[in-house]
Amino acid sequence: MTQQAAIALGVELRVLSQSPTDSAAQVVGEVFIGAHDDPSAINAIATGADVITFDHEHVPLEIIRDLENRGVNVRPSSNALAHAQDKVLMRQKLASLGIAQPKWKVLESVSDGVEFAQAVSYPFIIKVSRGGYDGRGVWVCKNETELAEILSQPISSDVQWLAEEFIPFERELSAQVARSPHPQMIAYPVVETQQKDGMCSVVISPAPNLAPERAVEAQKMAMKIADALDVTGMLAVELFDAGYEILVNELAMRPHNSGHWSMDGAITSQFENHLRAVLDLPLGSPKAKSEWTVMVNVIGGDFPDMYHAYKHVMARDPHVKIHMYGKEVRKGRKIGHVNVSGEDLNDVLRRAQHAADYLIGNIEE
Amino acid sequence: MTQQAAIALGVELRVLSQSPTDSAAQVVGEVFIGAHDDPSAINAIATGADVITFDHEHVPLEIIRDLENRGVNVRPSSNALAHAQDKVLMRQKLASLGIAQPKWKVLESVSDGVEFAQAVSYPFIIKVSRGGYDGRGVWVCKNETELAEILSQPISSDVQWLAEEFIPFERELSAQVARSPHPQMIAYPVVETQQKDGMCSVVISPAPNLAPERAVEAQKMAMKIADALDVTGMLAVELFDAGYEILVNELAMRPHNSGHWSMDGAITSQFENHLRAVLDLPLGSPKAKSEWTVMVNVIGGDFPDMYHAYKHVMARDPHVKIHMYGKEVRKGRKIGHVNVSGEDLNDVLRRAQHAADYLIGNIEE
Repeated sequence: MTQQAAIALGVELRVLSQSPTDSAAQVVGEVFIGAHDDPSAINAIATGADVITFDHEHVPLEIIRDLENRGVNVRPSSNALAHAQDKVLMRQKLASLGIAQPKWKVLESVSDGVEFAQAVSYPFIIKVSRGGYDGRGVWVCKNETELAEILSQPISSDVQWLAEEFIPFERELSAQVARSPHPQMIAYPVVETQQKDGMCSVVISPAPNLAPERAVEAQKMAMKIADALDVTGMLAVELFDAGYEILVNELAMRPHNSGHWSMDGAITSQFENHLRAVLDLPLGSPKAKSEWTVMVNVIGGDFPDMYHAYKHVMARDPHVKIHMYGKEVRKGRKIGHVNVSGEDLNDVLRRAQHAADYLIGNIEE
Repeated sequence: MTQQAAIALGVELRVLSQSPTDSAAQVVGEVFIGAHDDPSAINAIATGADVITFDHEHVPLEIIRDLENRGVNVRPSSNALAHAQDKVLMRQKLASLGIAQPKWKVLESVSDGVEFAQAVSYPFIIKVSRGGYDGRGVWVCKNETELAEILSQPISSDVQWLAEEFIPFERELSAQVARSPHPQMIAYPVVETQQKDGMCSVVISPAPNLAPERAVEAQKMAMKIADALDVTGMLAVELFDAGYEILVNELAMRPHNSGHWSMDGAITSQFENHLRAVLDLPLGSPKAKSEWTVMVNVIGGDFPDMYHAYKHVMARDPHVKIHMYGKEVRKGRKIGHVNVSGEDLNDVLRRAQHAADYLIGNIEE
């Protein structure tokens, strides 16, 4: 998806990819095959590149610091990325900034957990501080037995157990900003994100029934974090909307699933603004082009052949924007998304959901 | 630009390109290097491809017919393409369909030209029947001396001199349709095209002050031609708006400069609909997303380094959509285009023109 933006801007991309069949490797001319934690592969792609950026948070910081020490432009920098890689570091930083967030505690023992339960009461959340993704590495802890069970699992030495207060949120929001080294910042409309089985499923832009002052508060919070962490590129701040207040759940420093609506719904997509930001180009307008845009993820199900469904979806609704990732269908895997824009939210939601459902074989009329 | 659409659709492109530095070769994973008139290069790219299509009209028909005879899906077919390659064939076909067009005559001698001048009076137009492009191969003939001079130029044996009545048109329009083998057809809004030095310079979508019934007439004309010629993919019908009537000037069977506005201004771009059509997928909505979209070509001037101008344009107007083609700047060469959408046509026109002018070094405030 970044390649689509790069083509328009006349920016040449090269990609480091695990395999030549990876989504990005299929559509970029210059492909380097290698692992994201292999220093020699990363050195190879960095040689002669103007800027190095990421589509996930898992490149080891030592490798990034090594590049930085040799004068390579890495954006976002290791100092910023550290906060997206390590949830404890993020919680500490947000606390120092006075940003609203759930109560939290690093658990070094079961008794730490028991103490935390006294402060917030069961259930609460336990996460691994790094490496979790799409609901993996996250547990709801309902009692002391479960607490002991969760903490008995082996974790590697650089990972900590992070306990977080369970927020009985009304819904989840995401506030995305782009920030360039210049520094210039733009804030996208705040969106509502709906999860299913721990994965993002639906995004509604803008978040319905969000008071304008609350939306501005979320945008300012995201901008404050981007500035304080010296983020370059896209930052997604995932938020709990608890009704009375909004609290930070997670950070992502890259184009994010909650911003895929912008590919068809905003003047400038998050992918274009990520590129503009990391290249220190002036940023594009994040303004919405339609009253509503709804994004629904296409998540692999039981039907490996989507070709007939794909034709049906196109035939049924010529306004649906389909984005396929060139991935083999596997159960529970994000293999694409659809965007639908329009003026009637219920209509747009229904159409986007139908298209995404139909693509994976959930056929209801 | 087709690659941007292919990425979204999950369609794998391969491209036959003269050189690895050509625009398309820079952004497509699988590149075949070779000439568009080299049968072995074309055979190589055709092997294993589902469909062969084109971004220009210059592939020799014999090569295409040979592919067709071997069962390769070539879209548009040689029978359709013949009419875009040969203007005499096109004039004959349009005449048989009763489509309004300028008076025309094949000139085999100067005396044929003198005879034509008696019918339409000077000045009239002389064109080569094939191979012309962006004003090349077109002359305005004002008298018999010029007539003799033009016809004295050497042309190859498969090319004819085509004389056409000079139409004192008020403006030029373009009617684009996409047609699939199914067959399904969609018609884009009719646009106004403005030329400068024989090249398309500005496109306004939709054409201002065009009576709705006239717009529908142009769309129906384009659909009639697409059907009669069995076109697959995009068809652009370039029209003279003579006020009292509209007449066909040229045909192009591919995504066309007059449709670049659709990349940001329509629900489905011409590139996506070209792909959908040649793959026999249901077509996407050609509906405009904004009241007005203006496209201005960025045509190479005296300043080879556009980088500073590019930053200025982005900084000045975050709503401008820039599309660069990754081409070296050469005087008179189309190296990109900009699109601007909005509700106030004069404002949109001014901003798009400023951006395109500034990019090539014509700096006026």
